Parts: sequence; structure tokens; C-alpha cells
Amino acid sequence: MPGRLLVACDDRPGIVAAVAGFLHREGANITDSSQHSTDPHGGRFFMRMEFVRDGLQEDAADLEARFGEQVGEPLGGDWRFAWPWQVKRVAILVSRYEHCAMELLWRWRRGELPCEMVGVVSNHPELREQVEPFGLPYEVVPTPPGGKPAAERRMLELLAGRCDLVVLARYMQILSGAFLDALAVPVINIHHSFLPAFPGAEPYRRARDRGVKLIGATAHYVTEELDDGPIIEQDVERVSHAEDVGALERIGADVERWVLARAVLWHLQDRVVVDGRRTVVF
Amino acid sequence: MPGRLLVACDDRPGIVAAVAGFLHREGANITDSSQHSTDPHGGRFFMRMEFVRDGLQEDAADLEARFGEQVGEPLGGDWRFAWPWQVKRVAILVSRYEHCAMELLWRWRRGELPCEMVGVVSNHPELREQVEPFGLPYEVVPTPPGGKPAAERRMLELLAGRCDLVVLARYMQILSGAFLDALAVPVINIHHSFLPAFPGAEPYRRARDRGVKLIGATAHYVTEELDDGPIIEQDVERVSHAEDVGALERIGADVERWVLARAVLWHLQDRVVVDGRRTVVF
Amino acid sequence: MPGRLLVACDDRPGIVAAVAGFLHREGANITDSSQHSTDPHGGRFFMRMEFVRDGLQEDAADLEARFGEQVGEPLGGDWRFAWPWQVKRVAILVSRYEHCAMELLWRWRRGELPCEMVGVVSNHPELREQVEPFGLPYEVVPTPPGGKPAAERRMLELLAGRCDLVVLARYMQILSGAFLDALAVPVINIHHSFLPAFPGAEPYRRARDRGVKLIGATAHYVTEELDDGPIIEQDVERVSHAEDVGALERIGADVERWVLARAVLWHLQDRVVVDGRRTVVF
Amino acid sequence: MPGRLLVACDDRPGIVAAVAGFLHREGANITDSSQHSTDPHGGRFFMRMEFVRDGLQEDAADLEARFGEQVGEPLGGDWRFAWPWQVKRVAILVSRYEHCAMELLWRWRRGELPCEMVGVVSNHPELREQVEPFGLPYEVVPTPPGGKPAAERRMLELLAGRCDLVVLARYMQILSGAFLDALAVPVINIHHSFLPAFPGAEPYRRARDRGVKLIGATAHYVTEELDDGPIIEQDVERVSHAEDVGALERIGADVERWVLARAVLWHLQDRVVVDGRRTVVF
Repeated sequence: MPGRLLVACDDRPGIVAAVAGFLHREGANITDSSQHSTDPHGGRFFMRMEFVRDGLQEDAADLEARFGEQVGEPLGGDWRFAWPWQVKRVAILVSRYEHCAMELLWRWRRGELPCEMVGVVSNHPELREQVEPFGLPYEVVPTPPGGKPAAERRMLELLAGRCDLVVLARYMQILSGAFLDALAVPVINIHHSFLPAFPGAEPYRRARDRGVKLIGATAHYVTEELDDGPIIEQDVERVSHAEDVGALERIGADVERWVLARAVLWHLQDRVVVDGRRTVVF
Repeated sequence: MPGRLLVACDDRPGIVAAVAGFLHREGANITDSSQHSTDPHGGRFFMRMEFVRDGLQEDAADLEARFGEQVGEPLGGDWRFAWPWQVKRVAILVSRYEHCAMELLWRWRRGELPCEMVGVVSNHPELREQVEPFGLPYEVVPTPPGGKPAAERRMLELLAGRCDLVVLARYMQILSGAFLDALAVPVINIHHSFLPAFPGAEPYRRARDRGVKLIGATAHYVTEELDDGPIIEQDVERVSHAEDVGALERIGADVERWVLARAVLWHLQDRVVVDGRRTVVF
Repeated sequence: MPGRLLVACDDRPGIVAAVAGFLHREGANITDSSQHSTDPHGGRFFMRMEFVRDGLQEDAADLEARFGEQVGEPLGGDWRFAWPWQVKRVAILVSRYEHCAMELLWRWRRGELPCEMVGVVSNHPELREQVEPFGLPYEVVPTPPGGKPAAERRMLELLAGRCDLVVLARYMQILSGAFLDALAVPVINIHHSFLPAFPGAEPYRRARDRGVKLIGATAHYVTEELDDGPIIEQDVERVSHAEDVGALERIGADVERWVLARAVLWHLQDRVVVDGRRTVVF
Repeated sequence: MPGRLLVACDDRPGIVAAVAGFLHREGANITDSSQHSTDPHGGRFFMRMEFVRDGLQEDAADLEARFGEQVGEPLGGDWRFAWPWQVKRVAILVSRYEHCAMELLWRWRRGELPCEMVGVVSNHPELREQVEPFGLPYEVVPTPPGGKPAAERRMLELLAGRCDLVVLARYMQILSGAFLDALAVPVINIHHSFLPAFPGAEPYRRARDRGVKLIGATAHYVTEELDDGPIIEQDVERVSHAEDVGALERIGADVERWVLARAVLWHLQDRVVVDGRRTVVF
């Protein structure tokens, strides 16, 4: 498993040479490299490198310090290393529709999602029986009318400091800005339309009413502005006049499953970098 | 080439039997048949049949009269026959982007679009050289500021009564309701986004700003409400952070070409039926 | 849930009228209808109709007899009714790869596959723990070298007369013609390549060696000729030089899952008709 | 327009650092970078970099010499620079089907293919009228029975030394190894199936007979072994039982057009590197 280095800074000549030169001096072999510049003149520069070397784990802290001193500080941007032994801890929030949560758990069990699953939280008890065979705790945190502040406090007890990523796998409650701030880790949501079309509720019904010929799903980072966070991944499926709302929901469930699975995988692989309202996906 | 029969009426038992029985009594063989009901109890029923028989051309008017008397009147809905010898006449409206118009002309020349092309009208002279090798008239009707009423009058002189379908192949002027009424034939437009996302101007720039991972195009019938007419066909292509607005336009141009070509073909084959804000595409 | 009628006979005028007229006389409303003719002159005609009527269950046997007498016998082809209360019984055969079997079980549990699952048979014990939470028996029938005849006898005890469809969900043993004859129900297999490319073993390694840019999967009915039965469904996913064989297997596993799920669903909905080496999928 | 540097050598630590360090010392800014290693231990390493700098054109020869001395020779692999002012010269070979050639000419005219078109050669006269409006010479070189050696000699007179790429845009003659050797530039062919399925003649008829649910096209470099050269790009389109061979040809013509256009574009952008029987497409 390789180490990863992510850099985001103002574009200028010499960044690749500085970073590649550093890794070479450290005896590392660059096995993958991607870069993106929003504009070579005055734009923003993003880079992701994977590299291998023996003995990384013992030396990682020192290597990070040396990088900061020799490259990071002079560049003046953001940078971080991601190490293979720092496995990300993931929590899933779900309501009553099970398909997205099951897809993630199933891929995790067969080794496709490189993470530690810490548990599932739901505002409903229904999915307990399907989740527990995966050997995970299933916590029910109901959100009765007026009960959202208490529910969010309870969820913070369960989640804050205990996970590095929260996935909303068809969790049908809106999370407050205060909750997101206190949680302080990225949150990925799956929205059941190809945003920005049909934001908000009942997208399949509205897609049916509008007579669209494609329905889709969108995985995005959650921000305080509902359905407006940076998009990580989208996909669509073809539909026709013959599909009623129920059929659109069934077809859409498949698109939701694989769009969310891809977005979570790419996040776990440190491939997704937020660039304002957009993402760079290396 | 088969005859076609299209029926739209309130759903009730016996419609297929009545229509199929009529065609059988007339000696015709049904070679293709499609139907759609919005709801078997109290919904709307749509049907398209293709049939073959010797000597149709001599007998068509009488056969239509017999159908009206024996089936159409009792059913109380809309119905029409489309005959292979009634080739639809098509006019293309275009501004400066040539790709959609060229795609249609190229497919027409190689025999893929069963229609008579009557000519191209543009508010700009630039595409004359590309259009005329197809052996078609290229009429320039400029629309200077304040000149739209005169332009629409001139276009009506050129088009009204002379075509059965008008295709807006990236024609960048909004047509008035009065013009559409006077034209009195279906008008198909290609919009360069996956509607209802990004209606109106500059969809590619707005797609780039929003960071979507798919861009698309939409072919729809034109109504007075801009970009809100019944959708005939849509498709998308995958894009990434690496594509700037110019790249999105190039990628989108291909999607526009094939979405518009499919929509026009299906209209010419009498496959598209308007059902309120939606279409049934058989 | 509608009744379904499937007809296959030599093409000639009047088939649709005869069938639709019969259903109308019986008081049924045709809610869906599809037909296909390999050639209107001397070809083979296939038809599938869905219809609704009150009291079908009490009257089904008589209605079938009346159809045979009034329509089926005169037509001289094959026909059958499929009734919603005759739920098909399905058995799954699997070896060590779980993804296809899990996909089917998961869809069945959420109500997407209209069938009765009767159990899972495997030549390996590994998947017992994953299957049993679905409430299904998991039978291990090992196939040691030289032990295939005994294994097939044991499987016939378990399956013959107890299921209407067998699905090979990555079952890695070749079934003998004698077994297939004795089983006497359709068998659907998923092959992990876009047949006819890469038949036989190790398709992903061979796809990698050949440098293809798309990998695929194929669901087909099993015949005695390996990988050569009538294809029901195929799909592909894009790959690149960056994917090694392991990555192709992971990507391909997703294609296999959804191709097999679609093929099984369509079979259960009586949408698939075998036409020699091909299928008609209505 | 950037300069491009392509490197292929045995993988080892330090390659990226060496190349990026060189470009930085030369005052160039790396605007895009891709790499691929078949195996970090003992594999083959491929790299493509784009870079910008003022005054490249005056200095290019010296810069290449300095790169060879400082980086290329020590690395011991293959490397080449591609400069934006060295526009590749392209010739098209075509028989009677026009769609692929028209697609390339049309994209070239609208500025999407960065090349100089030098002309079209055909073994048939039919497409002259469609080609000449593009302002290009159309040379007819018939290949009567027994006349292939003479035809190849004539084509070498027309093409050898006058183009950097030859595109077989549905050219239906097999080119001899001697011809390819004497031509001494890459040749891209479009094959009308998703190879390795249906190599050779009449792929659409064989696809119809086999009952496949997807048809495709493959763009590949031509080698002496027919239909076996390194694949650059492939794509497919969904088909059904309803499509006869003629319909498959029409649908396939669209796939052929866009697969060939992408392959040619990527070649012109120096994105395609041959790796034995495979290609790396950056």
C-alpha cells in the first residue's frame, strides 16, 4: 500500500519538480501522479502523488516534518500525507430505505472499501436485522417532531471523535450547521436526482411530472446549504413514458447505490479534493 | 413501407380488439404494435400500429373513412393515419453553430431521415457555404435589435404551408407565440443542457460553475414557455474537473448532435405522441 | 397483477385481431402488448400480452381451454398463459464468489424479484454464513475429482421438481447434458465476458492481455454447448491500461451483478422467449 | 499550446524527479502530467507531460539535446518531444461507406482535430463529390483482382513521406506488410465490431446470428496480423431482437464514427503509447 501526498496551492513553475525531487531524495518511488491547474497563470494547483518506500511507518512523522520545512512552507499552500496504516473510520446514517447502506456494508465486507466501519445510526428501528449480521452496532436515534436538537446531541455523542467520515445513505433528516460544525469530519450525501435538477423532496415524482428521459443520482459533500454542496459523482439511467413513479424509484435505487459507492471509495482513496463549490476527483 | 395508425383516447376495454379487428377485416397484417396507458382505470390510452397490405395508396381515403365510422367515432378519441407516400417536409433554422444542422443534413443525404428537406433559414450568413453543397436553399433572415417582428413575418413567408416540421438546430432566437401559432406545425428544439437543469442561457458555463460530472442535451417540442416544452429525448456525457467551458462545449456538441438526430428521426417515424407536458415515444 | 399470454407461431395476417378479439370477448383489458416478427412474409411471430380482469383465478383453466379451442388450435403455434398466482420457484447455484448470489437474494428480499426462493446449493461451504440470514437452506454438494456424477445425482434430488428456474450465480462447474435434461427447467448462467469474446476460463486475464477498453458480462440460458446458449442480456464497463487483472475482476463483478439481476427479472416477468440461438426480450 | 514530452523506460525510482527537475531548470511550467507503470518492481514506465514556456520554438532543438544528455541517456529508455508547431499530416483511406471519413473531415474543418489534412485516397470514385467541398484532393486508386501490388505502389507514391498518420476510415482492402513497412507511419483502422468478437468480415451479420445485445466498434493500430493490432478505443451501443442486419449497420455506423474520431484525436494529441499488444492512453 502506497503513501499519498496531496498538495493544493497557487499555481507557479516548479511545484512538480520540488515535490518529486523531495520524494526522490527520500528514496521513494512515485507510482502514481495526477495534477490539475484551474489556470496556469494565476490559478490554483492541485496534486496527488502515490509513492512507495520501505520503512515508511517508522519514519512518517519525520518525513512529514522534512516535507514541511523543505517544500510545504516555501510553497505556502495546503498539503497533507495520507498513510496506509491510518485506516479511515466510517459511520453510516440511514432512515428506512436500506439499499444504499446495504451496498456500502456489502462492499466493505468483501474488502472493496478500505475503511473501518464503526456503526450505523438510524432514526428508525427497521433495518437492525439487516445490519447486525455484518457485526456492527445499530443505534436508533429517533427524531420526533421538535426532537431534532436532542437527536443531534445524541448523535454527536455517538459519532464525534469516533469517525473520520459520515455517510448519509438515504438519511432523510436535514442536519443543522451546528451539528456539522461539531461533527468536524466530511459528510457525504446521496441525493436521488441529477442535481441541480429536482433539488429537495420527491425528485422522482417531479421527474415523472416533467417527463425527463433520464433519471439520476448525485453524491456530494454536505454543506449547510441543502443539496448544494460540492458534487463528487453523478450518474443516470434511461427511462421512458412507461415508468411510473414506483418504477423510477426502483431504477433510481440502483443508480443511487453505485454512485454513492464510487464517491465513498474515492474519498477513502484520498482522490477527492474540494475546490470551492466543485471537486477535483483524481 | 408500412402504413401507421395512431390512436389516443380514454382507456377502456376493447380498444386493441376493435383496432386490430378493423385492420384484419381490411386485409392488413399488423407488423408492429405498441401501446401505453397512463392508468388502466380512468387513464389515457395511446397506441401506434404499423401494418402492410397491397394497394393501400389507392384505397387510403376510403379506408380512413371506414375506420372513422367503424372504430374512431365510437372510441371518441384522436386518431390519424400516416402513409408512407406522405413524406414530411422539414425546414431547419440555425444561427452560427453548424454541428446540429450538419448532422441532420448529413443523415438526410445518406437516407437515414425519411423526409423531404425544404431548406435552411438562418439569422446569419456564415453557414451558406456548408449548406449549399447539399443542394438546398439557404435563406438569411437577420434579426437586428427591434427587428424580430419583421424577421418572423419573413420567416412565415418562407415556411408557412411549406413544411410539416421545423427544427431549431441551435437557432439562438426566441420565437414568439404568435409566430408558432401562425406556423402551425410542430417545432423541435435542441437545448444544450439536461433540462430542467440549466434552462436559459449559457448552460455550459453554469454547469462548469456548479461542478456537475455529467453534461447533457435535451430535444423538446417548442411551446411558448421557453425550455419547458415536452421532452422527446435526452442524453449525457461524463465530464470531469479537467474540462473548462470550451471543452464542455465541444463535448456537449456531440451530445446535441445525436440527441437532436434521434428526436427528429422518431418524429418522422410518427413515434412521438404528446401527452400534456410529457411525450410518449413508441 | 395482470395475466400474461405468450404466443409463438408462423407469421400470418390476423393473429393480433384473433388474440385481442378473444381477450375482449372474455371481458379482459389489454394493458401491455408487444410483438415481433422475424419476417412478415414467412417469418416467425412472437407476441406477449398483459391483461387484467376480475375473477381470473377462478376461471383460468376454463379460459385457457377456450383460448386453445378458439385461437390456439387454429393458429397452430405455441402458446401459454402465465398467471400471477403461479409464483416461480428459483434455486441458486454458486461456488465461492458471492457477489451475484448476494445481489439476487438482496433484490428478492426487498421485493424486486417476483419469485419464491427455494434455496442455495454450492460446491463449497464458504457462503453459508452469508446466505442463512436470508432464511434459506444452504446445501453443500461437493464435486471432488471424479465426483461429478454423484454430485449431479445429489443436486437432482434437491432440485428436480422443486424449482422452475435454476440460476448459476458464478457456479464454476460445468453441468452435463444429462443433468440439464433431468432437471427439465430453464437454467440461466452469468458469464464474465461480453460473449462471444473470451469464452471459457479466465476471461479477465485474457481481456487484460488483449488490451480491450471495455469489459463485460453476459447472462444466457444454459445449453449443452458451453457459453453458447441464447443470450438474454449483456452490458459492459469502460476500463483502461491502468487496471490490472484484479481491478478488472472488481469492476466486472458489478457488471455481472446487474446483468444477471436483469436477466432473472425479465425471465420471471415472462419477457424472454427463445428463438433458436437468440432470444426475444419483450 | 504546450510542448509535450513522452518517456518510456524501465521503471525505477527517480524518473519523475529527473524529468520534472529538468523542465524546472529550463524554466518550463508543467501543466499536465500522467504516468503508468506496468509494475513498480521490474515493470515498464510510461510518462506524458505537457509544459509551457516562452520562446520554446527558438530553443527546441537545443532543449532536446540538453534533455538527451542530462536525462534521456542516463535513463536509457525511449523519449520524444512533440511540439505544437509540428502539426501532424493526416491522409484518409476510404472505400464506399462515407460516414467515418465524413466525421473526420467535418471535425477537422471545425477545428477539433489538430492536424493538416493532406487528402483522401479511395479504391472507388463514389465519394469524390462529398470530399472535394472540404478543399482536399480525392485520389482514386482502384484495386482490381490481381492489382493490389500496383495499387499499393501507387498509394506509396501518393502517401510515403507526405503524411505522419494514415487513417483507414472503412477502407475495405487488406494492406500488405510490405506496404506498411514502406509507409513507415502509424496506421489507424476502425473495425466494425467490439474486438476480439467477430474479427474479419460481416461482423454485423454474425452479431445478429449470435443474438448479442450490444454491438460495437474498435479503433486499433494496424499490424500485419489482421484485426489484431493494439486497441486504442472501443465503444458499444445497445440493440435488441428487433434490429435486423441493416438496422445494426445503421446503429453501428454511429459507434464507428465516434470511436474512430476519438482514437484519431488522442493520437494527434500524443496521448497513445503502444505497449506491446496493448496501448496506454493518457
